Amino acid sequence: MILDSISKPSDLKQLNINQLKELCAELRSEIIRITTKNGGHLGSNLGAIELIVAIHYVFDIEADRLIFDVGHQAYAHKLLTGRRELMENLRTENGASGFPDPEESEYDHFIAGHASTSISASLGMAKARDLDGETYKVISFLGDGSLSGGMVYEAMNNVAGTKNFIVILNDNQMSISESVGAMKLYLAKLLASRGGLSVRRLISKSLTFLPKKISRKIENCVKAIIQGNNIFEEFGFQYVGVLDGHDLEKLIKIFTNIRDVATYKPVLVHAITQKGKGYAEAERDATKMHGVDKSKKNKYSDVFGKTIVQLAENDKKIICITAAMKTGTGLSEFSEKFPDRFFDVGIAEGHAVTFAAGLAKQGYKPFVCIYSTFLQRAFDQIYHDVVLQNLPVRFIVDKAGFPGADGKTHAGLYDVSMLQNFPQFIIMAPSGQMELENMLKFASDYDKAPISIRFPKAEATDVYPPSIFELKSRVIAEGETALIISVGDMLKTALEAVAISGKSPTIIDARVVQPFDFETFYKYAENHDKILFIEEGVLGGLSNVIAEKLFADKKQYLLKKIQFFNASKFHPSHTARNTQLAKAGMSATDIAKNL
Amino acid sequence: MILDSISKPSDLKQLNINQLKELCAELRSEIIRITTKNGGHLGSNLGAIELIVAIHYVFDIEADRLIFDVGHQAYAHKLLTGRRELMENLRTENGASGFPDPEESEYDHFIAGHASTSISASLGMAKARDLDGETYKVISFLGDGSLSGGMVYEAMNNVAGTKNFIVILNDNQMSISESVGAMKLYLAKLLASRGGLSVRRLISKSLTFLPKKISRKIENCVKAIIQGNNIFEEFGFQYVGVLDGHDLEKLIKIFTNIRDVATYKPVLVHAITQKGKGYAEAERDATKMHGVDKSKKNKYSDVFGKTIVQLAENDKKIICITAAMKTGTGLSEFSEKFPDRFFDVGIAEGHAVTFAAGLAKQGYKPFVCIYSTFLQRAFDQIYHDVVLQNLPVRFIVDKAGFPGADGKTHAGLYDVSMLQNFPQFIIMAPSGQMELENMLKFASDYDKAPISIRFPKAEATDVYPPSIFELKSRVIAEGETALIISVGDMLKTALEAVAISGKSPTIIDARVVQPFDFETFYKYAENHDKILFIEEGVLGGLSNVIAEKLFADKKQYLLKKIQFFNASKFHPSHTARNTQLAKAGMSATDIAKNL
Repeated sequence: MILDSISKPSDLKQLNINQLKELCAELRSEIIRITTKNGGHLGSNLGAIELIVAIHYVFDIEADRLIFDVGHQAYAHKLLTGRRELMENLRTENGASGFPDPEESEYDHFIAGHASTSISASLGMAKARDLDGETYKVISFLGDGSLSGGMVYEAMNNVAGTKNFIVILNDNQMSISESVGAMKLYLAKLLASRGGLSVRRLISKSLTFLPKKISRKIENCVKAIIQGNNIFEEFGFQYVGVLDGHDLEKLIKIFTNIRDVATYKPVLVHAITQKGKGYAEAERDATKMHGVDKSKKNKYSDVFGKTIVQLAENDKKIICITAAMKTGTGLSEFSEKFPDRFFDVGIAEGHAVTFAAGLAKQGYKPFVCIYSTFLQRAFDQIYHDVVLQNLPVRFIVDKAGFPGADGKTHAGLYDVSMLQNFPQFIIMAPSGQMELENMLKFASDYDKAPISIRFPKAEATDVYPPSIFELKSRVIAEGETALIISVGDMLKTALEAVAISGKSPTIIDARVVQPFDFETFYKYAENHDKILFIEEGVLGGLSNVIAEKLFADKKQYLLKKIQFFNASKFHPSHTARNTQLAKAGMSATDIAKNL
Repeated sequence: MILDSISKPSDLKQLNINQLKELCAELRSEIIRITTKNGGHLGSNLGAIELIVAIHYVFDIEADRLIFDVGHQAYAHKLLTGRRELMENLRTENGASGFPDPEESEYDHFIAGHASTSISASLGMAKARDLDGETYKVISFLGDGSLSGGMVYEAMNNVAGTKNFIVILNDNQMSISESVGAMKLYLAKLLASRGGLSVRRLISKSLTFLPKKISRKIENCVKAIIQGNNIFEEFGFQYVGVLDGHDLEKLIKIFTNIRDVATYKPVLVHAITQKGKGYAEAERDATKMHGVDKSKKNKYSDVFGKTIVQLAENDKKIICITAAMKTGTGLSEFSEKFPDRFFDVGIAEGHAVTFAAGLAKQGYKPFVCIYSTFLQRAFDQIYHDVVLQNLPVRFIVDKAGFPGADGKTHAGLYDVSMLQNFPQFIIMAPSGQMELENMLKFASDYDKAPISIRFPKAEATDVYPPSIFELKSRVIAEGETALIISVGDMLKTALEAVAISGKSPTIIDARVVQPFDFETFYKYAENHDKILFIEEGVLGGLSNVIAEKLFADKKQYLLKKIQFFNASKFHPSHTARNTQLAKAGMSATDIAKNL
């Protein structure tokens, strides 16, 4: 294999074009082989191969800075930068992260798991470089989906005049599900009109029926009149496009030119690629292939997806909103059945929340469906637009908890800590399928306050017969000595711990983190010797709710009995969720020991 | 006065153009009179008067929805919607809020204190309206500064095709200090080229030297070729501009047309106004007049501003970044002395933080200077780009604490709660001028972790002789019975409380919230009967740091002695900071009672 001869980017420079093409084919089959085995982002990585090979061939990747956006296009880059062994164990404890990480390699200059950050980070690096009097290039590599995130525009607004600054837009015409909105149409229009040709050339071509002298004069008039024909040019970029992102030979030629153009002006390269290129199945269903998920279980997301469709059939006020997570949050069926009431706003969490607030203000019942880690993007909008107006926006906080193979950039550990700051916010966590169904029914009927329902990426098993839902805890078992209070899916872990220990503690499924059911809690807390709280999030979630009330009620003496099991101050690296639980000291065994 | 006859928007419809002009003059002098008395946003409100009168005259403001962005252009709107008495006591307890608030009036349909939210909120309302089968108009009113915030683009990306949707861009060519970046230049270019004329008309004008038949053919060619000449058109708006935002007669005429155009297409109106229009002093110094601040005291911001200049003179790695808060955070002198190392990125907090992370990654020492309330916009960027890479970005968290006359939208109460989630984050709070100076010196030298230094909008008085700075608490007084631990400026309140009480407790100035100095704390905690924590923020800041450690050290028994004084679960309405402290139960008197 040619790949065997590449241990650092400069090794590519020795290859001829045929060898480079062969290298692309090798990378493609390696990526298919690895992701089939370990899961991961197949489609986006396959689509980016020629672009990445061309970048590594043309630029001086050992001196220049290549900064990925989101980063699930970085597998080829990893394979080219001395990480073949790590890639063999992709997304497992001893293997490579699914995203770029400076801790993993000197060739990863910046972390990237959340979208739309690369231009900002690159710009910071470029300004530092300029102050240092250096001239290496800073290259941002981003997908078209990232263009729906506002941060990109905040960054582009500050780019003008920056030299040796290159943005490569890998436009596969899809974000996680499908790029939405005007930007998508705009990029398509650039493609249709071959926006890469200069206005002058286009006009020349169109005015061939006139004498050359007149047509030239007209060209100049028109150039002077129109204000520029390209959004990226308005932001100060030299726009180069639209390129075929799989034509390696041409990419190399154009990147070589760009290397020079960039010395005096920031450049944006717009290349069209095909998500899943080279993998027939991926090509047929590009959304499915965004991430390869091998499980076929009945996950919380699936339960949500089915239930919300049922509820919406009888309630025309229900609206679902997501930020490029349609499939991931289980909304495919809803989007097909109720296209008028479904909004995928793109990777734009801040907008999603304030948009939902607008709908709620008019009496609708918006469900905002976002992964916990991405909800962090909307902390201010939740506070300013939802909480201060006490609007009944419903938040479906998916993948709330340990991130499993996605690792630290995707940790869903902060949502409860964020939301419990706001006293009227109802925060719920289901411990199984029917609990989730009941909570959703409650949420669709309740319009006095904002609500969140959080659950992890896990199977929604009913480990205990569900009972009628109300805003109260459920007593699962009455026992002695120890009192366990588990939040959401942690009930499973609690029951497992009890089984291991052979003891018979009292077990309470908290159900509602806020307002917490202190009546039930006090009833049991007084006559138990120890109290164990199990929460898949950081300290400051339920623990803060408890602390506040105990202080207010002058019952601090109860705190002496309490032990918190949570994920506080811990950035979980990529591995199985169970391993992460154990590393945080909250596995069933850890808990059993304390019973 | 004509204003006396206006108690609701429809009253305007009775007036003729001369009376409307007279009304504008009256509004102008009322706003000048009120803000001179009560403080507030003078310049932006004066600039918006004709636009607001024209909107209220042309549209059916009793049925349509007028949604402000930021809202510090809403005074004229308030005066026209039955709130003259409330406006008399603007920004005081019994008066109007400085921002729109649905709790204050049925004509304020959405809250607005943070920037760039209006298009998102309006779009939510418009979609709700469409689902209801109604046709009233939704009008967003935003300043050009809001265009530097990414949320606007996230929202615009979703606007296309929405009917009866109007965005009015009040372009006074300034944001809080001065609009920055490419968007500003772009708007100026639209003005210079009179972008409002259609391309066809412009071409016609330029090609008069050709026979009509040929020039028409050329026009069509050109129209077909170019992809649109306006960013807003690319987002699907009908762009109307550039208008003179002070020409009331023309505004009324054009708004009347727009009312019809909007029935089939979203419209963006671009009007140029003059900040501070009609107030000579405001016109001379528009930045100063953004908010009228009558105090001349030596505030924490001033101390920061002076100190960072001194430090930067001897340290070329120091960079200052702000998000349209140059004057407010005390950076005017820095920006003049070190233009190469100063970056005002616009109202773009997310970008500011990741940009700083890029600089820090390259060995620079970025100070990100943002008000606490706006730092909420960057929670995710702090986590993902700064914390996960442990980059030494320095955060100067200004206006951290109660918001005073700005009220609930500007509460600076959540920053410590956000940042303490991250174990390595150093969180400091100075109790006076020299403490702040010393902390800044420390921060500029320390590069092992991110740092925040938070302080309120208050006078930086040294109430206690400063000592050498280290990452430890300061013992202010050794006493008995009670132990007070105050955070930052709350030391003043603590000393006041002690004076009132006549008792002699031990007083510790925490200085550093994280890592908290448990050595000193434990030394005193054991032999005192009560422990009072005083913190100008929500529960979950220092209290969480304390709780975590006490649990880890199995010292929960100390919690029995503890009383937390903080602003938890409390949205302060606009009034004096001292009143807000009292309402939260943390005035000197409240504390004295517990000593």
